[in-house]
Order: sequence, then structure tokens, then C-alpha cells
Amino acid sequence: MKIALDAMGGDHGLSPVVEGALQALKELDVELILVGHEDSLRPELERVQCTDSRVTIHHASQTVDMHESPAQVARKKRDSSIWVATNLVKTGEAQAVVSAGNTGAAMVSAFFLLGTIKGVERPAIAATLPTIRGTAIMLDVGATVDCSAQQLHQFAIMGHEYAKHLMDIAQPRVGLLSIGEEATKGNEVTKEAFRLLKESSLNFIGNVEGKDVYSGTADVIVCDGFLGNVSLKISEGLAEAMKKILMSEVMNSTLGRLSLAFMTGPLMRLKRRTDYAEFGGAPLLGVNGVCMICHGRSSAKAIKNAIGRANVLAQGRLIDLIQRDIAESLTSPMTPSPQMACE
Amino acid sequence: MKIALDAMGGDHGLSPVVEGALQALKELDVELILVGHEDSLRPELERVQCTDSRVTIHHASQTVDMHESPAQVARKKRDSSIWVATNLVKTGEAQAVVSAGNTGAAMVSAFFLLGTIKGVERPAIAATLPTIRGTAIMLDVGATVDCSAQQLHQFAIMGHEYAKHLMDIAQPRVGLLSIGEEATKGNEVTKEAFRLLKESSLNFIGNVEGKDVYSGTADVIVCDGFLGNVSLKISEGLAEAMKKILMSEVMNSTLGRLSLAFMTGPLMRLKRRTDYAEFGGAPLLGVNGVCMICHGRSSAKAIKNAIGRANVLAQGRLIDLIQRDIAESLTSPMTPSPQMACE
Repeated sequence: MKIALDAMGGDHGLSPVVEGALQALKELDVELILVGHEDSLRPELERVQCTDSRVTIHHASQTVDMHESPAQVARKKRDSSIWVATNLVKTGEAQAVVSAGNTGAAMVSAFFLLGTIKGVERPAIAATLPTIRGTAIMLDVGATVDCSAQQLHQFAIMGHEYAKHLMDIAQPRVGLLSIGEEATKGNEVTKEAFRLLKESSLNFIGNVEGKDVYSGTADVIVCDGFLGNVSLKISEGLAEAMKKILMSEVMNSTLGRLSLAFMTGPLMRLKRRTDYAEFGGAPLLGVNGVCMICHGRSSAKAIKNAIGRANVLAQGRLIDLIQRDIAESLTSPMTPSPQMACE
Repeated sequence: MKIALDAMGGDHGLSPVVEGALQALKELDVELILVGHEDSLRPELERVQCTDSRVTIHHASQTVDMHESPAQVARKKRDSSIWVATNLVKTGEAQAVVSAGNTGAAMVSAFFLLGTIKGVERPAIAATLPTIRGTAIMLDVGATVDCSAQQLHQFAIMGHEYAKHLMDIAQPRVGLLSIGEEATKGNEVTKEAFRLLKESSLNFIGNVEGKDVYSGTADVIVCDGFLGNVSLKISEGLAEAMKKILMSEVMNSTLGRLSLAFMTGPLMRLKRRTDYAEFGGAPLLGVNGVCMICHGRSSAKAIKNAIGRANVLAQGRLIDLIQRDIAESLTSPMTPSPQMACE
């Protein structure tokens, strides 16, 4: 299995990507194509003393920074690392692409180069969240901002197949993120999506409220990319704020400071259970190829885990299964689609 | 100042409401009208040995439970405690109403009996959130689910006046909850709202991402009632989940268990800084009267603080100021309004 790595993405430069690649090579039977500027990549590989023949460099002269408009990528950045890496999947030179760069740019590249799976209207990013009981996936967390009910239904189908095959859950419980349990609660789009999901063959458990996202009530939580993105980032921000407030209280008290020594073990385990790095990247589902999107602040470990997950996805038949399920669901005529986030 | 208390609401029955009322009487120069079934209220007042002449009982024969459809209240529950309590504000017998019951029922009662402030299209619930730097308010958190850009603009105006007069901030920083800082990021409605807010006279600081909600970047965070409600409940759920996971890790380790004794002080202070009970209720802004909505699980302390806040609001001129600002903002013709959450 060959995996293309967008080596120029990521807030922390090349190092975490290259180090993550090396860690992956130790554990996995994969070949890695580092896509980026040769003049930067070659010295980095020398620095980490990488002589593994399974790593190759594929030169790309341009980069896309985090604040660049994704729409520009298709027009002006066709030699950027993310575009070139995704194109390797299109041409069959790689079976998956992994990027920690500009999320919008990764989506645009996948959308334009790989296209969507037949029948899929819009792609969705599926993020893994820690819950009290284990993990759950939430989709979409940022690919499609304005969604129709039909598109939410399709996200549910994609999330269902992903949870079945990647999380080994025979009958994933699918929930719709909303503001109350009853079918009548929600906005116009979610109320219609509730109806579609209720009629579907999925194991639909109904609406899931915000307070239940982390309780493990559902394995797959469906929402539009706007709500999902805000939800994910609010969670990140709240966890950070709670940590800061707790630490300031702890440091203000002698007993508190003393207790820190005893708390190291539990705190480390809490971090491990809730650290996004453990989950690797989030797949962009609905496109015709494996595309794994990582957090901009990804550590080497997060990159390694994302490569691992991309490898599993590339070996599986997820795309075929999604195509089959979507075809089965298409009993009603297609509704017009709103714009994608990055257009 | 007379305040009507919906005594039959709340998940924990009468006791927290009655006890909160007594606490408020100790601290405030207010009169309280407990609205509910006389046969339940009289023994409860005897139990707590209340002889304060500033407390009166106003009989209401019906109750609205937490799962009842709010739409039924106006039709079939006109002698319910929430409807009767709100009506006391309408008739001028009370200057504010406080309820910890069914939020939808409180909104419907206020909407139908008090009406909206002239020019205001839809009401919004303004919740107070703890941040690293202090507090912020988020609105709407559940009154108006499908919002137009114009309505978000109005929420911003209402939140601005509230923060100015209740939080003593001369120039509140108003942010729009979205998925990126740039004006081009968001869904169709928020992108249009961004434009309206940019052109307004408010101190608009632009889009606020989920990760910044708890960092204290903005004093007023504007969003529709669907997003706000999910955001609030996700935060509640995550805080709860983190506490559970941390406690299970702590209890699994001898040193962890030992450290708990030292951590009591910091943990208690963390709780105080982040406890919703400290902030009392959330006002329903935009209606022609003071209506304070409390969490269903409100403690006596939360009720007491909500009464205190209602008292401040009833003494001030918030409704006049909102009416003035909304009138000034109405330079463009009104757009048709989507349905309210509870209709």
C-alpha cells in the first residue's frame, strides 16, 4: 500500500510529518511518498537519518498556508503539495493521501481530483470523539456547511459504514444532533432529516442532544458541517479553558501544588483517553479515494496514527460499500444541493 | 419590586424554588409571589417556617411538565403556574417572572402574553458562560431555532445592551459564532449577518470560532437558537464527561485517591467559577417584560441569583433601550421571519 503525505502542511512544519512517517514505517507494511519541496525534504530526511527505501520524495514547488483561500488551490496552486499528493491518488500512484495542512485546500483537492462517490451529493469529515464509554464519530465537522436533509441522511449512511468497518461495531447507533429528543425538536432541516432517517434501514436512535455527545449514547452523530465544526472547536476550547482555570486554582494553593505530584498518573491517562492524536486524522468521506485530514497542530504520533488509519481504509472496501448503500437509499429524486464550504 | 415565581417548575420540585425565594428575601428588598397549587405551596412554606409577609401565594391549578409540548400551554394550560405567573407581569401585578420549568412553555407564555418589544422580530435567551477572563453571554440559546441574518443582528443589539447594563461593560465586544475568522467563513445566514453587523454601530469584533467561546475574546456571542442550544449542552456534557473520566482515573490510582484530599480547595473554586448556579437564570430578551428562565435542575442558590438578576432588570430600562436601538437599526425593510422554536 502506498500512501502520499502532504509534507508541507501542518502548523509545526516538516518535522512532525517526517517523524510521524518514520514511526509509521516501524509499525506498518506501507510505502510512503513525501510530497513537498525537495530542497526542504531531503535535509530533513538526512537529519532524522532515514535510509528506509520505502520512503520516496515527490517534488512539489508550491505550498498552501493555513490562511489561504481554498478556492485558489484549484486555480493557482496546482503544484502545491496537497494538490500533487491528492493527484497521486487519482493517478493510482498512491492509495491514500494524508494531510495536516489547510483543511479547505485538502477538501478542494479531493473534491476536484477524486470527485464524489456515485450518488453522494457532498462529502463529510468524520471526526472521532472520546466518550465516557469509548469513542464516537461525528460528521460532518466542516466539509459541507449548508446541508439539506437528504445530505444529512447520506452522512448518516457514510458514518454507519465507517463505524461498522473501522470501529468494528456490527449495528452502529446513529443519532441526529439536535435540541431535544422528540422528532418535533430541531430546525427545519433536522426535522426533515429525522423523518428520512426514521424511514431508513439504519439503526437510527433518534435525536441526540448536545449533552449526550460525550456520554456515548450514539456511535455516529450526524450534523451539518457548520454545527459540527463549532461543536468540535467549542469542545477543544472548553477543555483548554477548564485545564487553565483548574491549573490556576491548583497553583494558587499549597496543597493543590502538592497534589500535582500524585495526580500525574491520572492526568496522563486522562490526556491519553481524550487526546485527538490517539485517533489520528479524520477521513473525508464521500470522495472517490482515501483522504485523511489531520489537525494543523498534529504531532508525529497523530501523523503516524493517521497513516495507520489511512492504510486500513485503503485496504478495505469502504467506498464500494458507501456507493452500494447510497444507491439503495436513493428512492426519492435528488434535491438541489447548497454550496460546499470551500467554494 | 414584585417578582412572580413559577413555583411548580423545576426538576427537583417545589423545595429549591421556595428555599431560593427565602434566600432572596434575606438579601433583597423584593416582594415575591409564589405561583402554583396552594395545597402544595402552603405546607412547603410551613415546612421552611416562612412567616415573611413579603411572600404571597397565587393559586394556579395546572402544571406543565418538562416533556409537554409548549404549544399546548396557550391552548390548554391557561391556569398553569407559568402562564399565570407571566400574566401577573402583563397585568402589572408583578414586574418580573422567574421560572425553572419547561423552557418552551415559559417562552410561549411570554411571547403570547407580553408580546415582543416594538421592532423586535424574535426573542432570544441570553445565557451567561464562564470564560478564562470572566464571563460572556451567548444568545440565542434556544428561543428562535431558524434565524434570519436580520434576526441575528437584532440579537446582537439586545446582547449589547444587556452586557452594557447588566455586566457594566462600556463597549461590549460583540462576536458572531462561526467556523473561521474571515467574513467569507460561515453558512449563508451568518455570512449575511456578518455584513449587517460590520455596517452597524456595534463594537463588532468579527467571527468568533468555537475554540474562542471560553477564552473571553468576546463579551457577547451571537448565534441562532439551534447552534446556541447545542453549544451550551455540549459544553455541559463535556464538562460532565471530563469530570467522570478524571474521577475514574483518580480512583483507579492510590496516589490519585490520596491527592483528592489536597485538591478539594481548588476543585471547589473551579466549581464555583464554572457553576451555572452562580449566574442565576438566563433572561428571555426581546419580550415586553422581564422573564428569567432557569435551568430545570436549578438549586435554591440558582433561584436566588435569578431573582436577584430579575430584580436588577426590572429596575432598569433595558426594554426601552433595546426598543430605541432596534428602531435605529431598522433602516432596511423587515424580512419575513421563520417559525419560533416552540410553535
